[in-house]
Amino acid sequence: MKLITAEQFLNNNADQSSAADDEKKIDQAVLEIIQEVRSSGDKALYDYTKKFDKVELDQLAVTEEEFLEAEKQVSDSFIQALRKAQQNISEFHQNQMEKSWFVNKEPGIMLGQKVTPLEKVGVYIPGGKAAYPSSVLMNVIPARLAGVETVAITTPPQSDGSINPHVLVAAKQAGADKVYKLGGAQAIAALAYGTESIPKVAKIVGPGNAFVARAKKWVYGDVAIDMIAGPSEICVLADDTASPKYIAADLLSQAEHDESARAVCVTISEPLAEQVIMEVRQQASRLERKEIIDQSLEQFGKVILAADKEEAFNVVNIIAPEHLELMIENPQEQLEYVKNAGAIFLGSYSPEPLGDYFAGPNHTLPTSATAAFASPLGVYDFIKKSSVIQYSQEALREAASSIQTLAETEGLTAHSNAIQVRKDGPHA
Amino acid sequence: MKLITAEQFLNNNADQSSAADDEKKIDQAVLEIIQEVRSSGDKALYDYTKKFDKVELDQLAVTEEEFLEAEKQVSDSFIQALRKAQQNISEFHQNQMEKSWFVNKEPGIMLGQKVTPLEKVGVYIPGGKAAYPSSVLMNVIPARLAGVETVAITTPPQSDGSINPHVLVAAKQAGADKVYKLGGAQAIAALAYGTESIPKVAKIVGPGNAFVARAKKWVYGDVAIDMIAGPSEICVLADDTASPKYIAADLLSQAEHDESARAVCVTISEPLAEQVIMEVRQQASRLERKEIIDQSLEQFGKVILAADKEEAFNVVNIIAPEHLELMIENPQEQLEYVKNAGAIFLGSYSPEPLGDYFAGPNHTLPTSATAAFASPLGVYDFIKKSSVIQYSQEALREAASSIQTLAETEGLTAHSNAIQVRKDGPHA
Repeated sequence: MKLITAEQFLNNNADQSSAADDEKKIDQAVLEIIQEVRSSGDKALYDYTKKFDKVELDQLAVTEEEFLEAEKQVSDSFIQALRKAQQNISEFHQNQMEKSWFVNKEPGIMLGQKVTPLEKVGVYIPGGKAAYPSSVLMNVIPARLAGVETVAITTPPQSDGSINPHVLVAAKQAGADKVYKLGGAQAIAALAYGTESIPKVAKIVGPGNAFVARAKKWVYGDVAIDMIAGPSEICVLADDTASPKYIAADLLSQAEHDESARAVCVTISEPLAEQVIMEVRQQASRLERKEIIDQSLEQFGKVILAADKEEAFNVVNIIAPEHLELMIENPQEQLEYVKNAGAIFLGSYSPEPLGDYFAGPNHTLPTSATAAFASPLGVYDFIKKSSVIQYSQEALREAASSIQTLAETEGLTAHSNAIQVRKDGPHA
Repeated sequence: MKLITAEQFLNNNADQSSAADDEKKIDQAVLEIIQEVRSSGDKALYDYTKKFDKVELDQLAVTEEEFLEAEKQVSDSFIQALRKAQQNISEFHQNQMEKSWFVNKEPGIMLGQKVTPLEKVGVYIPGGKAAYPSSVLMNVIPARLAGVETVAITTPPQSDGSINPHVLVAAKQAGADKVYKLGGAQAIAALAYGTESIPKVAKIVGPGNAFVARAKKWVYGDVAIDMIAGPSEICVLADDTASPKYIAADLLSQAEHDESARAVCVTISEPLAEQVIMEVRQQASRLERKEIIDQSLEQFGKVILAADKEEAFNVVNIIAPEHLELMIENPQEQLEYVKNAGAIFLGSYSPEPLGDYFAGPNHTLPTSATAAFASPLGVYDFIKKSSVIQYSQEALREAASSIQTLAETEGLTAHSNAIQVRKDGPHA
């Protein structure tokens, strides 16, 4: 964990471009997989699952028996915790529901916006070494609230062909319609274009590794996606009122995700900066995932010392972190200075894991500075809007000359004709 | 214009995939341009403008003198029509404004969603043969309403180095901050990554040709984009109450856009189908842009005959048209059957050009069946959301065991530690 000044940070931050070379290699593999799934369908899915997940499957869809078996394998305390989390997530996301609206602008003129849920949605849940039942809740619940008809999960099978029981229990509880044993770029291709056993969806959401992320970029446009997720990030903005122990614990909780996770503290207090670095070192030594943590901190861990509050917020807004903790006095009053952040945690008792699992807001958040333009996953990701326009004959007649003037300015005379025929009448 | 049955349409609609070969050639050129703009900045922009637009520019930004000169060149009737359109567009889009909200869920628990406008936005406006002042209004107005700080337009210069005066007048009136003389993939690259004279933006919106569309796909992720626009489309769903003359005029207004524009009529009335085809032929012969219209209709024009209402709406929803006209009895009552459409025009006196120029809803709409998951451009495209979470010490203590159970289930023990240190207190 390095201590640098805000000035040093700002000078070195010029090119935040993505690692183009790595991407090229991954893209080549990903494009081949997408092509193969489009041309060979299910056969390609079974073949890739054998190749990458080392397992030969008979069918992709998880059976009712497997769901029942999973329920027996999880603890009561897990189910209790999952239910409370589900309750909080549902409650928060209900605030995001949108309704169609229609207005009578003038006599003879009705305008509106029709809200329609997406019909089918695919949710990717990572598998392999870890299991993420929390991601199941965070992705399935807002889709269900939006009114999506079919929510299908794909997640890579374990080497014995099974799916982690916590994931299956969460899928059932959140109301997913199907779970398919399928991971990687092949899962994204199957959801985007459909195969014999996996129906094409309108949108693909959920986190994944670099192959999944690049596959999502490639299918984007043929299908909607939530975002292209990069490494997870935390930024703690702290002043002297904050506990270095709490700050360190939160930085470490981010660093344990993986070697490329980014944990940064921004402060104007040099003593605090030094205490945080010391605390990080001490607590890290006691943590299970110390190796991952050390690598993450070594590469990306930083305490950034700013000259004043303005510079500190400037650094925060340039980082545009996925998670921002404001461990400062009266954090609510400082909220207006935050322009770019996925989720903002206020005060000393709102650590990131509270948001990751429990509080209610979504944990699928924009990474890699995309909080400058992107939002957390929400109910709004699972609906689309259609404009509605209705004019009476009289109302159109009044508007006619303006429309014709504008159409003719653009040289689109058949547009003008569509107005003219209505002025002339149907039998002219 | 061909007459086919719904069954024939549905059987031939299996693969709606994009034309991959054309795209590959365009991509190669586009990627080279993006790379060159990233490495050489303004110099690349001047070079490409010389190469593609055949003009050597001294500076990219339109000057105040050029804006003043443009005002002298446009007619009063144009300015009048533009002002009325702007008024309607502003009024409609004000219904889309979103506010931050905060709720006190329980004592000690505050949750919320903070809404922040994007800081900088780039609007691409096509140039060349035609000029699109209406697109200026449709893209700039919602950005301004959202509270975007800087709205920059790029549009290719004419061969004398000027920009069409109607476009400049619309830009000024809608409140754009800057207009740059720059088109093609180089404009998208400049907006996405910034150069000496063009600041990097958070989001790029607006229509463009295939190079612009592919460039937007490539920069997507580093910057937000509105959509990847395909050819423009209309679908008219009509019954015997509709005037074949009006239907034909509307199909023709779409077909004049360009050779790849798509005009389709769906009906369950065979006599109507035949009358529409006849009317199209008659009206087309009198229209200025007959050549473009003929090519568009030859390739993509269709009247689709459905067996019943259900099949007709099924065809409409599969087409998921950019523009849908319901020229049927009591169209409002049929709205619920429309699942996928960018904008829906109800009745005989709501022709598409009314929406293109004047009524108020946006004319930037999802094409190529993406209305299955995408929405019209709106104020919501120019804001982003941040979740806000604040728990008191007491509230966190009550949630602690649930959070720790879920974190440990996922094997993320440093997440659990971030809760534990707060249970232990800052000095434990």
